[in-house]
Amino acid sequence: MTTESSELYPVTRIDEVRAATAAAGLGALLLTPGPDLRYVSGYHAHALERLTCLVVPAAGEAFMMVPRLELPAAQASPAGRIGLEFVPWDETDDPYAVVAKRLGDVASVGLSDRMWAMQSLRFRDALPGVEQHLAGRALAELRMRKSPAEVAALRAAGAAIDAVHEQVPGFLRAGRTEREVGRDIADAIMTAGHAVIDFVIVASGPNGASPHHDLSDRVIQQGDQVVVDIGGTMPSGYCSDSTRNYSVGEPDSAYAAYFEVLRRAQEAACDFVRPGVTCEAVDAAARQVIEEAGYGSYFIHRTGHGIGLESHEEPYIVSGNTRAMEPGFAFSIEPGIYLPGEHGARIEDIVVCGESGGERLNLTTRDLVVVYQ
Amino acid sequence: MTTESSELYPVTRIDEVRAATAAAGLGALLLTPGPDLRYVSGYHAHALERLTCLVVPAAGEAFMMVPRLELPAAQASPAGRIGLEFVPWDETDDPYAVVAKRLGDVASVGLSDRMWAMQSLRFRDALPGVEQHLAGRALAELRMRKSPAEVAALRAAGAAIDAVHEQVPGFLRAGRTEREVGRDIADAIMTAGHAVIDFVIVASGPNGASPHHDLSDRVIQQGDQVVVDIGGTMPSGYCSDSTRNYSVGEPDSAYAAYFEVLRRAQEAACDFVRPGVTCEAVDAAARQVIEEAGYGSYFIHRTGHGIGLESHEEPYIVSGNTRAMEPGFAFSIEPGIYLPGEHGARIEDIVVCGESGGERLNLTTRDLVVVYQ
Repeated sequence: MTTESSELYPVTRIDEVRAATAAAGLGALLLTPGPDLRYVSGYHAHALERLTCLVVPAAGEAFMMVPRLELPAAQASPAGRIGLEFVPWDETDDPYAVVAKRLGDVASVGLSDRMWAMQSLRFRDALPGVEQHLAGRALAELRMRKSPAEVAALRAAGAAIDAVHEQVPGFLRAGRTEREVGRDIADAIMTAGHAVIDFVIVASGPNGASPHHDLSDRVIQQGDQVVVDIGGTMPSGYCSDSTRNYSVGEPDSAYAAYFEVLRRAQEAACDFVRPGVTCEAVDAAARQVIEEAGYGSYFIHRTGHGIGLESHEEPYIVSGNTRAMEPGFAFSIEPGIYLPGEHGARIEDIVVCGESGGERLNLTTRDLVVVYQ
Repeated sequence: MTTESSELYPVTRIDEVRAATAAAGLGALLLTPGPDLRYVSGYHAHALERLTCLVVPAAGEAFMMVPRLELPAAQASPAGRIGLEFVPWDETDDPYAVVAKRLGDVASVGLSDRMWAMQSLRFRDALPGVEQHLAGRALAELRMRKSPAEVAALRAAGAAIDAVHEQVPGFLRAGRTEREVGRDIADAIMTAGHAVIDFVIVASGPNGASPHHDLSDRVIQQGDQVVVDIGGTMPSGYCSDSTRNYSVGEPDSAYAAYFEVLRRAQEAACDFVRPGVTCEAVDAAARQVIEEAGYGSYFIHRTGHGIGLESHEEPYIVSGNTRAMEPGFAFSIEPGIYLPGEHGARIEDIVVCGESGGERLNLTTRDLVVVYQ
């Protein structure tokens, strides 16, 4: 295990998790491949149909069910260093029955938030009468408060995606399609050190008004504004996510006017971050600037989402979320203004709540970047 | 919609699916982003925390819940052409309650096989007393029998991954790490026309004995054998998957001996494929050759898995699966022999069952490719 992974995935975490499981009133956690499993054990496995499952009883020793052909990979992962018992199973065994038998008498289990139905329904049938809840009940609070090593991993991810945005002006020009530009960006995401490309949004002209547009064969025109929202996952497991806005030639005055409003709104929300303020208050800080300028109906989504081992996780920066910020919370601040059929803009940074305020992890210019050719 | 997507995702499929839902005794299907949703509607959406859900009642009209910010993307997808009602929801709405209200009185629902627990448990709570089953109950039979357009899409995927294997000898040499070789392969997977890299296994020397090894920093040595198992997803949604074996310099005679057994086993299973034979009989055809040669205990996994919109799906080519082959079934044939601590080998082709036999979709040499430098 590298120093990096032993700091990111400390061997003592399993004890914290066991305590949190008991405190949440759950009999055990059942964690299949995905961010919950990786957080607890450091094991990063492909989610597939064969059951891999870390079982963390509130009282008793944790063990991991693993298909026999993946046993060497599991043992070689950080999970091999936390004193877990590995229970390999063969192709014609029923691993759900094995879990049920070893687990014995529990009243409830917490399923990893992304467990597939093909597994959760098998556990339901193998553990009749056992209540199913989400593992998030025990894990969300732990996962929300990033350790210094986790913040460092997010900072590295931020620097990597910033390096990609620095190259975007060289990729963008009239006459290229969004997909062609997206391909260059995807290459740059990998070259910048990511292990996985999570998404590449190149939304040009009227496509900019569709917040989750990804890539199309639209040819970028002289005079287009282009929203570029990109992110990936680093080898550490931690994610990047940043949105910047580009203009191929000078923008028209209507666009420039609301872009300035958006810039102020994004800054207001970032400046508002500090321990004790609620998530919904951060959302309101951005929204208020946009509403006062008369664009409220064009800001059609929440202000942000948490980020860590998932590109979207708790805390959500949204109206109704009264959770107070704490040091170590990490999330996006990404207000947008979208004029259907015309164009749109969104400015997104990842921000970490510190002891006295927020730290932005994305540092490229937030101004509209005008590309001349 | 391109011709390709209208053939792959025909507008009439929703009617077949409705009939299959009724035949399976389910009140409705609830399909969140993933292969089930894409199969039924052609809509390819990122799986995220906001609910996107195609609801297909056994009796009544289908509709799709979609976050308002993704409405333009959903409407622009093939799902926009099948006469669905789109029901957008806003950030502070409860979309689960909306589904429950519109669905009315049903006794059971089928959840998409990969639906996340964070959604399946919300549906459980929003639909009290309604039995949850897997949508696979209605969809698996449809998805297993590939249409001519689907077979064509898998054939194109096979040709794309074959083009990558043709380049592997140029990437492999003593002194490079598995990870460096893997990076070149990943680039080549994208350049060959895939939209997504699903996995890159470069298992050199003793790592070759770990079937699901992926990449490590191990430096490849002169005299190593290397298992290269790679796959991706094409823009069509259909997957590729092929394994070939390389040797950096001449192999030793012990390896060469069992490699020849493996080659015969893989060929025996491929030759055995035809309508009416069971999946487990195809597994046995490979296994028998390996067992007779005395390597039975080193073949530690099933012979194969179905492939289509997922890289692993039904039918599984495994002991106990008595399903008879039908034309259009598509699956891998990938026996392996693994000598722990020494080396291993696996040969994998995707095979489609035709009217009178199997068609291999991977056509590069199955011989050990010796790389000299």
